[in-house]
Amino acid sequence: MEATDQVMKMRHTLSHILAAAVKELYPTTKFGIGPAIEDGFYYDMDFGTEKVTESDLAKIEKKMRGIIKRGFTMERSEKSRNEALDWAIEGKQELKKELIDELPEAQTISFYTMIDSNSKKEIFTDLCKGPHVEKAKEIGAFKLVKVAGAYWRGDEKRQMLTRVYGVAFETQEELDEYLKRQEEAKARDHRKLGKELDLYTFSDLVGAGLPMFTPRGTLIRDLLAEYSLSLRKRAGFERVWTPHITKVDLYKTSGHYAKFGDELFMVHSQVNGEEFALKPMNCPHHTQIFASRPRTYRDMPVRYMEPTTDYRDEKTGELGGLSRVRSLTQDDSHVFCRTSQIKDEIKNLVGIVQEFYTRMGMEKLRARLSYRSDEDKYLGDKKLWEMAQKEIRQAAIDNKLDFFEAEGEAAFYGPKIDFMAEDAIGREHQVATIQLDFVQPERFGLEFVNEKGEKERPVMIHHATLGSIERFMSVFIEHTAGWFPFWVAPEQVRILTVNDKVTKYVDEVSEVLKEVILETPVENNKLRFTVDDSDDSLGKKIRRAVAMKLPVVLIVGEKDKEGKTVSVRLRDKEEVVKLKDLKQYLEKM
Amino acid sequence: MEATDQVMKMRHTLSHILAAAVKELYPTTKFGIGPAIEDGFYYDMDFGTEKVTESDLAKIEKKMRGIIKRGFTMERSEKSRNEALDWAIEGKQELKKELIDELPEAQTISFYTMIDSNSKKEIFTDLCKGPHVEKAKEIGAFKLVKVAGAYWRGDEKRQMLTRVYGVAFETQEELDEYLKRQEEAKARDHRKLGKELDLYTFSDLVGAGLPMFTPRGTLIRDLLAEYSLSLRKRAGFERVWTPHITKVDLYKTSGHYAKFGDELFMVHSQVNGEEFALKPMNCPHHTQIFASRPRTYRDMPVRYMEPTTDYRDEKTGELGGLSRVRSLTQDDSHVFCRTSQIKDEIKNLVGIVQEFYTRMGMEKLRARLSYRSDEDKYLGDKKLWEMAQKEIRQAAIDNKLDFFEAEGEAAFYGPKIDFMAEDAIGREHQVATIQLDFVQPERFGLEFVNEKGEKERPVMIHHATLGSIERFMSVFIEHTAGWFPFWVAPEQVRILTVNDKVTKYVDEVSEVLKEVILETPVENNKLRFTVDDSDDSLGKKIRRAVAMKLPVVLIVGEKDKEGKTVSVRLRDKEEVVKLKDLKQYLEKM
Repeated sequence: MEATDQVMKMRHTLSHILAAAVKELYPTTKFGIGPAIEDGFYYDMDFGTEKVTESDLAKIEKKMRGIIKRGFTMERSEKSRNEALDWAIEGKQELKKELIDELPEAQTISFYTMIDSNSKKEIFTDLCKGPHVEKAKEIGAFKLVKVAGAYWRGDEKRQMLTRVYGVAFETQEELDEYLKRQEEAKARDHRKLGKELDLYTFSDLVGAGLPMFTPRGTLIRDLLAEYSLSLRKRAGFERVWTPHITKVDLYKTSGHYAKFGDELFMVHSQVNGEEFALKPMNCPHHTQIFASRPRTYRDMPVRYMEPTTDYRDEKTGELGGLSRVRSLTQDDSHVFCRTSQIKDEIKNLVGIVQEFYTRMGMEKLRARLSYRSDEDKYLGDKKLWEMAQKEIRQAAIDNKLDFFEAEGEAAFYGPKIDFMAEDAIGREHQVATIQLDFVQPERFGLEFVNEKGEKERPVMIHHATLGSIERFMSVFIEHTAGWFPFWVAPEQVRILTVNDKVTKYVDEVSEVLKEVILETPVENNKLRFTVDDSDDSLGKKIRRAVAMKLPVVLIVGEKDKEGKTVSVRLRDKEEVVKLKDLKQYLEKM
Repeated sequence: MEATDQVMKMRHTLSHILAAAVKELYPTTKFGIGPAIEDGFYYDMDFGTEKVTESDLAKIEKKMRGIIKRGFTMERSEKSRNEALDWAIEGKQELKKELIDELPEAQTISFYTMIDSNSKKEIFTDLCKGPHVEKAKEIGAFKLVKVAGAYWRGDEKRQMLTRVYGVAFETQEELDEYLKRQEEAKARDHRKLGKELDLYTFSDLVGAGLPMFTPRGTLIRDLLAEYSLSLRKRAGFERVWTPHITKVDLYKTSGHYAKFGDELFMVHSQVNGEEFALKPMNCPHHTQIFASRPRTYRDMPVRYMEPTTDYRDEKTGELGGLSRVRSLTQDDSHVFCRTSQIKDEIKNLVGIVQEFYTRMGMEKLRARLSYRSDEDKYLGDKKLWEMAQKEIRQAAIDNKLDFFEAEGEAAFYGPKIDFMAEDAIGREHQVATIQLDFVQPERFGLEFVNEKGEKERPVMIHHATLGSIERFMSVFIEHTAGWFPFWVAPEQVRILTVNDKVTKYVDEVSEVLKEVILETPVENNKLRFTVDDSDDSLGKKIRRAVAMKLPVVLIVGEKDKEGKTVSVRLRDKEEVVKLKDLKQYLEKM
C-alpha cells in the first residue's frame, strides 16, 4: 500500500511537531533533518550533553499531542541567503547553517512556521522545502517508536546524531493494524528465529554480511534451491558451473563495468599483481559457455542454470541478518533463444514462478513490468527496446498476470518482469524476475547458424526463481514464522521416549521411519528424524521440541509399545497412529 | 617408480652428451644448464641465429649415439675462479660465466670432461657439480623427444633459450614401455578430451586457470561430488555452507596467515576500503560454525562437509587444463571429536576412501603417513604431535593400508595420511587425505562440556575424499580415456533412427527410457538420453556417437520396430534387446 501525498504531508508536519516538542523539553538541541518516510517520519537531532533514550519518548509524545490539541497552522515564508544564515546563527543551529551554506545560489530558501491557533504565537520555525498540511486538524494517528544513532549526512566521519522515529497513519485503526503487524513481524524476525532454530551464524573473524549456514540452515538452503532447480530442469534447463572471479575484461565487454565498475569487489594477486573482480552476477560468464562452440538453430534454445554465489559490496550499515548480505547465492539462469521463441520461454518461466510461490504458500503475486525511461543510461537500439517491451506486456496479458507498468525500472540491457509476493502477514517482497536482453548477445558477438546457413544473433532471457537464496530465506523464515513446511523442515520428526522401557520399541519405530521417502516437491527426500531418549522429563523434552518448531513429534510410551502405536503431536493437533500406518501417514504430510 | 641414483647419473651424463653433439653440429651454441630430471634430461641452449626444431632431433640423436659408440670416460677436475672464468670467456660461454660469477666465494668449482676412449682427446667440458657415470658403457636407452622455449634462469625478462628434452632408462624395454605409456597418455589427455567431449571451456575474458563447466562437464562434477558426499552422509556428516571470502583475521587466528599470508588472493572493497581474502581452504570457517553454540559430549563427534570453491594463486605458467587451476572446488570435511574417538573416525574415513576409489576403478591405493620434521615450521605441542603420529600409524596398520612414512611432509597443524591412487595406465596420483589437527581447536578456543561438566578441547580431523573436483576430473578423464562409467556419463544413451519410418516406435522406446532410474552408486539417477533423428546417414550418426564416447547407443530400424527390439551398441559389443527387457537391462549396467 503506497502512501498518498496527503499522508506524506502529514508525516512531514509530524516531524516538525516532534522537533517543536523536543525544543521545548531540550532547548539547546541542534536540529539536523526531519523527513517523512514510509510508515512515518523521523528527526535527526544533536542533544548535546543530554542523553535521550526510548524511555523519554512518552514524555516527548505527550508534548506533541499537547501542541496538536491546542491547534496550529503551518505558514510558509522565504528568506534571502543572508537572512537564512542569520536565522541559523541566532538560533545556534550549526547543522542548519551547513545545510543553508550548501544550497545552490539560485535556490529559493523557504521556511515553515507553526503558529499557535489561539495565541497566534510562533511555536517552531524550520528550514524546509515542504509540503505540509495546513493545520493541526489534518494530523492523523501517530506514535513515537524508536531511538537510534545516525551519522550526520550519513557520513561515518561526522558526529553521531540521535534519530527519533515515529509512525503515522490517517486513522487510529490503520495505526493499530500497523503496530500489530510490527509485533507479529518482530516475533517472526528471521534474525531472532535464525538463532533460536540454529539456522545460520555470523563471526567477527569472517566479517559482516557474510553468513555461515549450520547443518539445519544448509538443509533448508539446499532443499529450496533443489526444488527451484527441479522446476527448471523439467523445462529443459541444464546446470553449468562458473568460477566466482573473473578478469574485469568480461564486464568491460558486457557493459557492466561502465555502469557498476566502482561497486565491484576487486581481487588482487600478490603473486603476479593480476587484477580480478568477484562476480556480482553470472550472465557474462554464461555467455562464454554459449560462445565456447559453434551453435545451430537445432540447438536453440540453450538454457543454462547455476546456483552460485555472487558478491556485492553493500555498506556495513545496510547489512542485517539475511535480508542484505555481501554473499548472495543466486539461483540464476539464462536462456539463449531466437526472437520467435521468446513468447514460449517467458510462458515457461511464468509457470515456474507461479508453481514455486504457490508451493511456498505465497500464491498472491503481482508483476511489475519495468520499462526504460528516456534517460541515456540504457544500452542498445531503441527499436529493439520497444519490441521487447511489447513482448513483455503481451506475455503479462497472455499469462493473466496481475501487473502494473513502471517506467525507468528496467535493467540497463533490457525490460523485465519483476514479481512481488505477499507473505503471511501481508507484506510484499520482490522475488523472481524475468529479463529480456538484446544487448549482451550483441556485445559478446553471440551467434548461431540458422536454417539458411546464415549467422543469427540470439536474445538472452535472464531469470531467477527465488532470487538470492539468502534473501528468500529471510522472507521464508518470517513468512512461516519458523514453522517450516514438512518437506523442508531440517528435522522433520523427533521421537520422544517416555522412559527407558520403550527403547526396543523405539528401534522398531525408527526402522519404519528409515523407510519413509517423500517424493514431492523434491524427489527422493528421505525422512530426517532424531530420537530424544535423554533422562529428562517428558515435559522438558516436549518443550524442547516445540521450541525448535518441529512439524511432527512422536511420543512413545509403554501404552504405545503395547498397542503398536505412536502418539503424534503436530502443531495444531494430537492423534494416535498405528505403527503399520505410520509410513503412509508421514508420506502424505 | 622412483629413479635410482645410477639412473639419475646416467641421465645427467646424457645431457652432457647432448651438449657435445650440439656443439659439433652448431659450434657457436651458448650453453645454459642441463640437469637430469624425472624420466630423462634436458639442456637449455642459445642457438643464436640458428633455428633448431623437433625435425633436427634425429640428427642430434645420431651424433649422440656416435659419441657413445666410440666410447668415452668422464673425468672430474677443479679450477680456481679465475681459471673457470677464463674457460668461459675463451669459449664465449656467457651463460656459464654468469653462473660462475654467482657461485659463492668458498665453493669448489668443478668441471667434467668427456674423453674419447680411443683418441684420448677431449670431446666436451662442462662446468658441473656431477655426479656422472664413469664411462659410455653405463649409458642405457634414450631418445630425444621435444623442443620447447625456456627463459634463462626461469625469468620472463631474460632471453628465451631452446630446451631440448630427452628421456632415458636403463633398458630399451623400459624406454619402450615409457614411450608407449606417453602415447596412451597423449590420447587420453584431458585437455584434448575436455574439448572433444564438450566438458569445460576457458575464456580469455575470464582468465587463465578459471575453467567454466558446460552442461556435460557440470553433470560429471555434480555426480562425482554427490557420490563422494553420499558416502560421508552415511557416516554421519552434515552439509554446511560458508562464504568464499573472509576478513584475514580468521587466518591470523588459525595460523594460516603467518604461513601463507602472501599467497592469498586479496579482496578489496572500493566502497569502504575493507580488506578480505578469498578462502584457500575451509577449516577456519568451519571452526566458526562449531563455535556458534555451546556443545556437550552428547553432540560429539560433530561432522561437517562442504563442497565449496577455494581460490589459490597459482602462477600463470603453472596452469594447464584442470590439473592446476585457480578455482579449486574441494569436497572438504571436518570432524570435531574427542581424542578417544579419533580411531573410529579415521577408520570410517579410510573406509570411505577405499569404497570411493574402488568404485572409480582405482582400487590400488598407497598411503603416505606424513610426519613433522625437526624444523620450526610446525605449530603446536610436540607431545601432541607424537601422540597424533602414533594414532595415524596405528590406524594405517589396523586398516591394513599399503603405507610408507615420510618425515617433513605434515601440514603445519598436524600429521596426515595422504592417499595415492594408480590410474589405468599405471600413473600414481595424490588424491584423498586425512589430517589430524590439535592446533586450530586450540587457537580458536573450541570446546565442549564433558560428562563431568568440565570444558574439554576437541581435536579436528580434516578430510577430502576426491580432493579438488577439478583435479580429480583431470585424473578421471585420463583414467577412463573419456569412456565414463555408465552412471556418470553425461549422455548415457543415444537413440539413432535408421529412417523416419520408426518415429512412432522411437517414442515408445523413449517412454521406456524415461522410466529407467539408477540407484547406485548415486540414488535416484534418472537416465540421461537423447534421440538423433536427423536426416544424416546411419553411418554418420554412429560416427558422431562414437566420437562422443557414449556408453550405450540404441539403433532403431524397421526390423526393431517389427520385432519390438532395439539394437544395442556398446563399446565392446553389440546385441539385440527386447523392448520389454530394456529397462532392466539398462538398470543393471
